[in-house]
Amino acid sequence: MFNNSTYSQIIQDRLKQVDFPEQPDNLYDPLRYILSLAGKRIRPQLVLMGAELFEPRTMKDAISASLAVEYFHNFSLIHDDIMDNAPLRRGKPTVHQKWNDNVAILSGDALLVKAYEQLCLSPVEKIAPLLQVFNKTALEVCEGQQLDMDFEERSQVSEVEYIDMIRLKTSVLLGGALQMGAIIAGTSLENQQLLYDFGVNLGIAFQLQDDILDVYGDPKTFGKQVGGDILANKKTILFIKLKELASEEDKQLLTELLTHDIDKEPQKVEKMKALYAKYDIPSLAIYQKEKFTAVAYEKLEAIPCPKASKQSLFNLANALMHRAQ
Amino acid sequence: MFNNSTYSQIIQDRLKQVDFPEQPDNLYDPLRYILSLAGKRIRPQLVLMGAELFEPRTMKDAISASLAVEYFHNFSLIHDDIMDNAPLRRGKPTVHQKWNDNVAILSGDALLVKAYEQLCLSPVEKIAPLLQVFNKTALEVCEGQQLDMDFEERSQVSEVEYIDMIRLKTSVLLGGALQMGAIIAGTSLENQQLLYDFGVNLGIAFQLQDDILDVYGDPKTFGKQVGGDILANKKTILFIKLKELASEEDKQLLTELLTHDIDKEPQKVEKMKALYAKYDIPSLAIYQKEKFTAVAYEKLEAIPCPKASKQSLFNLANALMHRAQ
Repeated sequence: MFNNSTYSQIIQDRLKQVDFPEQPDNLYDPLRYILSLAGKRIRPQLVLMGAELFEPRTMKDAISASLAVEYFHNFSLIHDDIMDNAPLRRGKPTVHQKWNDNVAILSGDALLVKAYEQLCLSPVEKIAPLLQVFNKTALEVCEGQQLDMDFEERSQVSEVEYIDMIRLKTSVLLGGALQMGAIIAGTSLENQQLLYDFGVNLGIAFQLQDDILDVYGDPKTFGKQVGGDILANKKTILFIKLKELASEEDKQLLTELLTHDIDKEPQKVEKMKALYAKYDIPSLAIYQKEKFTAVAYEKLEAIPCPKASKQSLFNLANALMHRAQ
Repeated sequence: MFNNSTYSQIIQDRLKQVDFPEQPDNLYDPLRYILSLAGKRIRPQLVLMGAELFEPRTMKDAISASLAVEYFHNFSLIHDDIMDNAPLRRGKPTVHQKWNDNVAILSGDALLVKAYEQLCLSPVEKIAPLLQVFNKTALEVCEGQQLDMDFEERSQVSEVEYIDMIRLKTSVLLGGALQMGAIIAGTSLENQQLLYDFGVNLGIAFQLQDDILDVYGDPKTFGKQVGGDILANKKTILFIKLKELASEEDKQLLTELLTHDIDKEPQKVEKMKALYAKYDIPSLAIYQKEKFTAVAYEKLEAIPCPKASKQSLFNLANALMHRAQ
C-alpha cells in the first residue's frame, strides 16, 4: 500500500501536537482513540500532494486543511460504524462498541466541528474557497452514505446508480482533498478541476477493484475475508451486473442463494462465482474499473506541470491500482 | 413568550426560500420536517438583534448567520433526541421516531454542514471571526450535552458543575448568536463580550427558572407537566441543592423516594416538595436565578448604545424572565 514517508511524517508530527481538552473525557477520549488507530492517512496526504504539485512552498500552509480532512474522514467512520453496526475498525473495537452509541454520536459531532476548526487555521484568504469545497464534499459524503443504506433496502439498483453512490460515498473526498491542496497552492480553477477529476475517478476505480478483489483476490494478501461480500449479500458491481444480465432461471437461482447463509449453503461463494463466470461478470467489472483508471490518468496527464512533479501522484495511483490486497 | 414579528418575519421568509435537494429523500426530508415544526426561533432572532443593536443597516447581512444558528440548533435537537430517546419534539414525532436512528444521525450531520454553508454566505471579511465564535460555541454545546449525560450516571453533582453544564448546553448558544450579530455589525471586541455575557447569563437564569417552574409553575400556563422533573428523577438546581443541604435522615428519605415511581408512590411530587420546603430550596434557587438575571441586565446596560436601541433586548429579557409558562 502507498505510503510516502515525507507526507506521513508531516501529518504524524502535527497529529502528535493535537491537544484535545481532558474533560469531558467521554467526549474527547473517543477522538484521541480513533485518531490513534493507525490508518493509512491517504486523504490528508492528498491535500499536501495537491499543494506541492502546484507550489511546493505552500505545502506547510496545507497542513491544517490536511488535518481537517483526516478529522472529517474519522468523523464519518465513527458515525458510519454506528449505522452499519460494525464491531471493528482497523482491527480494534469501534467507538460505539468501546463506549456506546450516544458517545459515538456526540464525539463524532465534536470531531466534525474540530475539522472545521482546523480548516479555519488555513491562510485567511483561502478559508472561503476551502470551505466551499469542504462543505460540498461533506454533504456529498452524507448523500453517498444515505444512498448506500437506501440501496440495501431496495431490490433493484442499476450500475449507474451504484457508481454514483460510490462516487459520493468515497471518491469525492479524495478529489476534494486534492482540490483543497490545489486551492492553497493558488492554482487556476481549471487545474483544480483536473486534479479533482483525477481523484474522483481514481477513487471509483479503487472501489470497483475492491469489489473485484473481495471475490477474486489472493487470500494471502487480501486484507479481508475473500468472499465476504457474497456471504453478506452485499450489492457490489459484480452482483448488480449479474442481476442485470442473468436469465430468468438464473435470477431464480440467485434469489434462492441470497436467502441461504453459509450454514445452509456451504457452497454459497462457489455457486455465486459460477454464476459470475457464466455471464463473464469479472471481465465486465474489470472493464469498468479500467475505464475509470484511464480517465484518472488522463486527467493527471492533462495538468500542465512538469512530469517529475506529478511523479508522487502517479506513484500513488499505481500503488492503489496494483495492490493485491 | 417573546416574539418580535419583524425579526420572525425575516427569518420565516428566508426559511421559505431554502431549497434542499429532493434526493436522497431520507437525508433531506427530515431537514424539511424539523425546520417546519414551528419553534420560537429565539436564537436566529438574537443574531439579527445583535447586528441591529450596533448598526441597523447590517441586519440584512446577518440573515445567513441567523439561519446558520437556527440550523445548528435543529441539528443539536435531532441528535439530542436520539440520545435522550425522546418521542416528541414540539408536539410532533422526533426525527428518529418518524424515520429511524440512522436517518436521524445522518440527516443531523447534513444539517450541521448546511449550517456552515449558510454561515459562509455572510460578508466575506466576517467569515473568519464568525467561524471562530461558531466553532467554539458548537464544541461547548457538545461538551454540555456530554456533561448532562454524564451527570445522569453520577450520584453527586455540585451546584457549580450543574450551572456550568447548563451554561454550555444551552446558554453559550444564546450568547454566541448575539455575538455573531455584533461581529457582523462591526463593533468592538469589548462590546461583543458585553453582549455575549448578557446572552449567557440570561440563558442560565432562564434555565434555572425552568427548573423552578417545573415544580412551582401554574399548571394552566406551564407548557409541560408540572412535577415532570421530579417524576423523572432529573437532577435540577432544586434537587442538587436539596442533596447538598439535607440531613442524613432526609438524604435517606430522598434516596428511597428516587427508587419509587409514581405507581408505587403516588405522593412522590408532594413528598419531594415537602423536602424542598423544609430546606427553603425554592428561595435558594430563586436567589440564584435572580443573581444571573441581574448580571445579564448589568451587561446589557453597560453597552454604550442609546437606551432606545437596546429596548428590544430588554423586552426579550423581560418576556423570558417573567413568563408564567
